[in-house]
Amino acid sequence: MDNSQDCVLSIKWENDNLVILDQTKLPEKVEYITLQTIEEVWDAIYKLKVRGAPAIGIVAAYGLYISVRNSKAADFESFYQELRKNSDYVASSRPTAVNLFWALKRMEKRALDSKNKTLEEIKMDLLNEAHAIRDEDEAMCKSIGENLLTLLKDGMTILTHCNAGGLATARYGTALSPIFLAKDKGWNIKVFADETRPLLQGARLTVWELMQYGVDVTLICDNMAAHVMSKGWIDAVITGCDRVAANGDAANKIGTYGLAVLAKAHNIPFYIAAPSSTIDIDTPDGGKIVIEERSEEEVSCGFGKRTAPIGVKVYNPAFDVTPNHLITAIVTEKGILRPPYKEAIEIILKK
Amino acid sequence: MDNSQDCVLSIKWENDNLVILDQTKLPEKVEYITLQTIEEVWDAIYKLKVRGAPAIGIVAAYGLYISVRNSKAADFESFYQELRKNSDYVASSRPTAVNLFWALKRMEKRALDSKNKTLEEIKMDLLNEAHAIRDEDEAMCKSIGENLLTLLKDGMTILTHCNAGGLATARYGTALSPIFLAKDKGWNIKVFADETRPLLQGARLTVWELMQYGVDVTLICDNMAAHVMSKGWIDAVITGCDRVAANGDAANKIGTYGLAVLAKAHNIPFYIAAPSSTIDIDTPDGGKIVIEERSEEEVSCGFGKRTAPIGVKVYNPAFDVTPNHLITAIVTEKGILRPPYKEAIEIILKK
Repeated sequence: MDNSQDCVLSIKWENDNLVILDQTKLPEKVEYITLQTIEEVWDAIYKLKVRGAPAIGIVAAYGLYISVRNSKAADFESFYQELRKNSDYVASSRPTAVNLFWALKRMEKRALDSKNKTLEEIKMDLLNEAHAIRDEDEAMCKSIGENLLTLLKDGMTILTHCNAGGLATARYGTALSPIFLAKDKGWNIKVFADETRPLLQGARLTVWELMQYGVDVTLICDNMAAHVMSKGWIDAVITGCDRVAANGDAANKIGTYGLAVLAKAHNIPFYIAAPSSTIDIDTPDGGKIVIEERSEEEVSCGFGKRTAPIGVKVYNPAFDVTPNHLITAIVTEKGILRPPYKEAIEIILKK
Repeated sequence: MDNSQDCVLSIKWENDNLVILDQTKLPEKVEYITLQTIEEVWDAIYKLKVRGAPAIGIVAAYGLYISVRNSKAADFESFYQELRKNSDYVASSRPTAVNLFWALKRMEKRALDSKNKTLEEIKMDLLNEAHAIRDEDEAMCKSIGENLLTLLKDGMTILTHCNAGGLATARYGTALSPIFLAKDKGWNIKVFADETRPLLQGARLTVWELMQYGVDVTLICDNMAAHVMSKGWIDAVITGCDRVAANGDAANKIGTYGLAVLAKAHNIPFYIAAPSSTIDIDTPDGGKIVIEERSEEEVSCGFGKRTAPIGVKVYNPAFDVTPNHLITAIVTEKGILRPPYKEAIEIILKK
């Protein structure tokens, strides 16, 4: 029996339609919308109705297929020009999303590789390529979850931060993947979720998707994590990751570094869940990672209500860097990396 | 020259009137209101227009004087009955505020001690007693600040949590007292203030009162403190305190314990500012301090807007306990306590 049928999917291909969960409405409203034109796809990405690098890439791929499936082009050359124009248009929806460009380029390449086929065959190939991008992401997330699961036991309680869940990927997510898989196995895993200021991805998204799956999840404010750890309630901390340097230092959502320090102080293992594509071998260590600073409004009036004086000086870094010595293991789809990370990373990237 | 004239006072006695800063309007609006009747005093305390244990006690004392200053009582007995009735009424505004009862009892005792005087003389004695309660609080806060100042240097940057400032006391506050005093000396002290979820006292109050005084203050989310420490930007952490156990373990606003762990990990001194009255010699250690748990709404819809799913399970402890080994010094108005705290506390309580 596959219990995972109940998993909330942020992207579905249903009756030849692209259907997405409008994440801007969460957690107040669960609303799936059908994207029927390339303009609607652009809008969904631009307005963060779909978010998370893998999820954006998948929607863009399907969107590109949608944009040409009714093409009236007479030959490959004009069909390909139309595809390229639509691809550039979708790429403009979030100009810094590397995964978006990667998915679009992959779709363009698939068209080129099929240039000797009929246009109808090429259209089918493009749909299959979008399916493949989705399926590969799902398989990768599942592998990360299976690898993480070998580090966990039935009855454990996990603390997580931000949202590295299924909503941001095809399915399962990264940090949350083992929790969904554990639930499928019938394990009793409890979760504490940091709300994750300033944008509250933990409160709005992580808590919501775990509740949908029937996971026992408790919401806390970020500053309560230390107290919860001191009670002996946490068996492991698992977070996602935006970038891993060649020495294993890891950049992730602001607050992750503090959790790693606290986990160490309480002898709690601290795991990073990361696709191997997150490892940036050209960045020697975390000190070289530039930390994005975001607007003061996110902190001083993030809920449509001012919570700090006008004119207040705010420091709002979006990420922090956790040094390798605080990370118990980095868990990828290719396997579990342990210190010393430099060597472990070199080995895994050759796989 | 006394630069401290510019200090924001949450309570003023002006032209024979009790004037308070309506703290519920901060930081959006600076509104002083005059409390003319005992009902208005009750309402101001009940609705948190005045907050902070010392400030509540001071307002209650003035309020009790206001309630009898126009008394038409014919003799001491009926005057005293009227006073007692009004005292019980004010006490009902916040039934768990120990400092409120303490101030009211002190006012009642002053009336009793003056029973052989004329009623007009007794009324003057009551006003003077209210002044004394205020002045003693101010002097105590100033002493705490002066003692803390001996641990700081010009040019330092302080991290603080929640609001232990002048708004909660007659003047100066506890944790913020040395910062005001340093400013008066012309020192260049910078402050990072945690916003302090869920109720945002740091963002709403601490940042505001430091800005009013011209202090260079930067607001951060609670989960950014570790990152800021790792940058080497923080020279000391100073927080207030709700209760100190006989062994030096200290209960304070949730998040304080985590900061203490982080400070230790970054070799940053961690100071607790506390009136000696906060030391509870009958509580042997922090493990005996019961932690108040508050409503889930404070976390899930604290900004007038839902930020987490309906039905979410929330853990919302109001306080945590910092064990004595993480506290570099506990600074009271009677002097600076250093480990081992049990002995230091016994000595200071004999002073």
